[in-house]
Amino acid sequence: MSNHHVIHLISIVGPTNVLVGEDTQSFATDYRGVFRGQALAVVRPASTAEVSAVVAYCSQNNIPVVPQGGNTSLLGGSVPDASGTAVLLSLTRLNRVRAVDSLNATMVVEAGVTLHAARTAAEAAGALFPLRIGSEGSCQIGGNLSTNAGGTAVLRYGNMRDLVLGLEVVLPNGEIWNGLRGLRKDNAGYDLKHLFIGTEGTLGIITAAVLKTYPIPRAKCVAMLGSASADLALEAFGLLRQRLGTDVTAFELISSDAMALVLEHLGRQTSPLPTTHPWYILVEVSSTSSQEVAEASFYSALSEVAEKGMIDDAAIASNEKQAADFWLIREEISDAQTRTRGSVRCDISVPLSSIPGFIRETSAKVTAVAPSTRMVIYGHVGDGNVHFNPLRPAEMTPEDYLAQHEDAIMKLVDDAAMELNGSISAEHGVGTAKRDELLHVRSEVELKLAWSVKRALDPANLMNPGKVLPLMPTN
Amino acid sequence: MSNHHVIHLISIVGPTNVLVGEDTQSFATDYRGVFRGQALAVVRPASTAEVSAVVAYCSQNNIPVVPQGGNTSLLGGSVPDASGTAVLLSLTRLNRVRAVDSLNATMVVEAGVTLHAARTAAEAAGALFPLRIGSEGSCQIGGNLSTNAGGTAVLRYGNMRDLVLGLEVVLPNGEIWNGLRGLRKDNAGYDLKHLFIGTEGTLGIITAAVLKTYPIPRAKCVAMLGSASADLALEAFGLLRQRLGTDVTAFELISSDAMALVLEHLGRQTSPLPTTHPWYILVEVSSTSSQEVAEASFYSALSEVAEKGMIDDAAIASNEKQAADFWLIREEISDAQTRTRGSVRCDISVPLSSIPGFIRETSAKVTAVAPSTRMVIYGHVGDGNVHFNPLRPAEMTPEDYLAQHEDAIMKLVDDAAMELNGSISAEHGVGTAKRDELLHVRSEVELKLAWSVKRALDPANLMNPGKVLPLMPTN
Repeated sequence: MSNHHVIHLISIVGPTNVLVGEDTQSFATDYRGVFRGQALAVVRPASTAEVSAVVAYCSQNNIPVVPQGGNTSLLGGSVPDASGTAVLLSLTRLNRVRAVDSLNATMVVEAGVTLHAARTAAEAAGALFPLRIGSEGSCQIGGNLSTNAGGTAVLRYGNMRDLVLGLEVVLPNGEIWNGLRGLRKDNAGYDLKHLFIGTEGTLGIITAAVLKTYPIPRAKCVAMLGSASADLALEAFGLLRQRLGTDVTAFELISSDAMALVLEHLGRQTSPLPTTHPWYILVEVSSTSSQEVAEASFYSALSEVAEKGMIDDAAIASNEKQAADFWLIREEISDAQTRTRGSVRCDISVPLSSIPGFIRETSAKVTAVAPSTRMVIYGHVGDGNVHFNPLRPAEMTPEDYLAQHEDAIMKLVDDAAMELNGSISAEHGVGTAKRDELLHVRSEVELKLAWSVKRALDPANLMNPGKVLPLMPTN
Repeated sequence: MSNHHVIHLISIVGPTNVLVGEDTQSFATDYRGVFRGQALAVVRPASTAEVSAVVAYCSQNNIPVVPQGGNTSLLGGSVPDASGTAVLLSLTRLNRVRAVDSLNATMVVEAGVTLHAARTAAEAAGALFPLRIGSEGSCQIGGNLSTNAGGTAVLRYGNMRDLVLGLEVVLPNGEIWNGLRGLRKDNAGYDLKHLFIGTEGTLGIITAAVLKTYPIPRAKCVAMLGSASADLALEAFGLLRQRLGTDVTAFELISSDAMALVLEHLGRQTSPLPTTHPWYILVEVSSTSSQEVAEASFYSALSEVAEKGMIDDAAIASNEKQAADFWLIREEISDAQTRTRGSVRCDISVPLSSIPGFIRETSAKVTAVAPSTRMVIYGHVGDGNVHFNPLRPAEMTPEDYLAQHEDAIMKLVDDAAMELNGSISAEHGVGTAKRDELLHVRSEVELKLAWSVKRALDPANLMNPGKVLPLMPTN
């Protein structure tokens, strides 16, 4: 039976692009090794037409299809379940930049183009593609779209959803929807692209996209600030935003425990600031004005923030190398946690105005449950997204800490976010890991609505089944 | 039968808020008097709960529901058909600003709040709600959302879809979906709000929204430029955008025929420029920097544009009054056409890079069909949206011109836009007027997909029936 399927799939994409058996293992496991599945076969089409033919065949034969980009998902969205019944469809070979239009400030790229390659193609045309996330070299545009990726420049440029004008999608029955329009205004009918953005391949497979590009900023200013409290840090954000508008490109908060952890990981003695602070802020301002003009505005705004006591110290990067060095601290926090092991990773968002209270109260609750926990808290605070990742005390093993506390802490953090009308998954999506939690944080009305869309587009539930949508009593 | 319904509706909203007979006429006709329908009754609920009860009752009794905001639609989307079977549900009494959160830069408003009231509420909190369209005083947030309104500040702030974070919606069965989340990052499940934005009330009724606000720019610069061709004007846009980034808030192109028409309408002898030009550009730059800094950048960029021959003259508004005066010229073009009568109004968009060719070739085609037509062309060129509105020669009656040429010109313009992968409705939506045109400009795959969503949410086709979605052979 499955051999018959494999032969047919080979007839579509050729023998070298259908993998079976052991060759499927690296695809069927996520990059952290947390989610391990089995695939009937890995199929690697090279064109939209081939994707269409594969999906049509699977639809006709009731075979589930799990699309996969760079497989950098954190929540299991990109790997199949353990049944071994699904075709894993890798988009990696759809890797062409089809067109770049400088005047329209758009480019058309295929799903398998890596974020790095997309950014490079834009730069070659004198433009910026602004999405900025850690996995840039591996993650692919199709995955960025289907998870509505966020990252460190959302404050200025928005999430991936905001960076796309049109899509090409292979629908669950194999039909191709060509919605590759590069228009900033288009109200001629339902805007269907939103069905496929952030739905993790459960409604269809994105094969190409028209992305927006931006002018490359001529000026960039980066600083590390020290602040006495999250409340003051948020006030500083509000004032900088008033003074510098959307030029405030990143505003990243880092707790003292997070700073201590990453400095140790990097083998450094001190942060860019000579003394320690309860909170650090990495701020980046970018502008199309000259460096001189941008710096003058930045310094003036920083002075005001300091005079008002919102920050206690500031180190300003004096060149590109130093700026990169400041950013390295922020970017390495994730790896520092991975290496240290024993952290509970929560990716929540709340309204900005609720962030200080959330951090204060949730930290107290965690400490009450798990004393001596290190409060590794950081994130894209300018857009409300906090990575709230309690870390084991140094003297406790990762295994003991997680066994004793992980579930309780995660529930506690998620509950606190929901009480503030926040989200339990700000930018990491749902996959399988967060799927059933949606039963607790989303209303029945909302889940029924999502399922009605799912059933309308994919009545046989073959597209990335088991992801995003929790099973409901009425299913 | 209908009397029985009226009694029930009165039991929900009270006797003064159910109108029948002649009292429904002004609601059942659009403001231009072009689309005239009949309503079973006009119902004016005052709360989400009342909207829910009305819709639930209509659903149970198979009564179509036509939601209406400020009734400023141009394409018939806000009025019922002539059958007299529909309840017209006016959102006007849902007019509370529920909350303003300055630090989170959001506000929660009900659907019936006028755009003007929303802008005023934001200003009172020291913030900007940036949507800017001519009907500001009458149009309502619910209508702005359900038509994804555009206007003159899209270039900087995006369409209405980009200005909303969360929605509250009454679904076709009367259930209330509370999606009033004020989060800039939230990937916990399908982002369902996009189902209701731009779908003109065909999938549900928006009752409230969380809107984004922005810092109020401290500086504003407005200028009227003269340019020899649309190509050069577009080059000027590209360069200004490189130099000033997203501070370029509006970039409006005006043809010489459009300028002549509006000057006559305003009783003026000359534009802000002393001589005539083939094209005029109204440009506005706004910035959170000081006026001095913004002006220096603006003048420097304008000098560069002039030196490169992209523009031939520039008049810079020296104060707020003069800036308003320049804007009046742009804003009165629409009324000048209405008063003159005999114009074919097309609201198309194309990729920016295609605008000059589109204007050149389409103008030639129109002139070939209808000699001596005045080429009234204007619009938000910075976002690709051209109002291409050929106007009768002065010596021809409006009736003769439209009878002879309207259909042919409209088809010709729309065809030209579609050939360039553009849109036949950039910002005005579909309503009934453009509905059947979608059969020609959208693929069968796309229309089937839209219908599958419609059927999933509104299986009895009771929500604003006959709007947006064309009847298909398979229906």
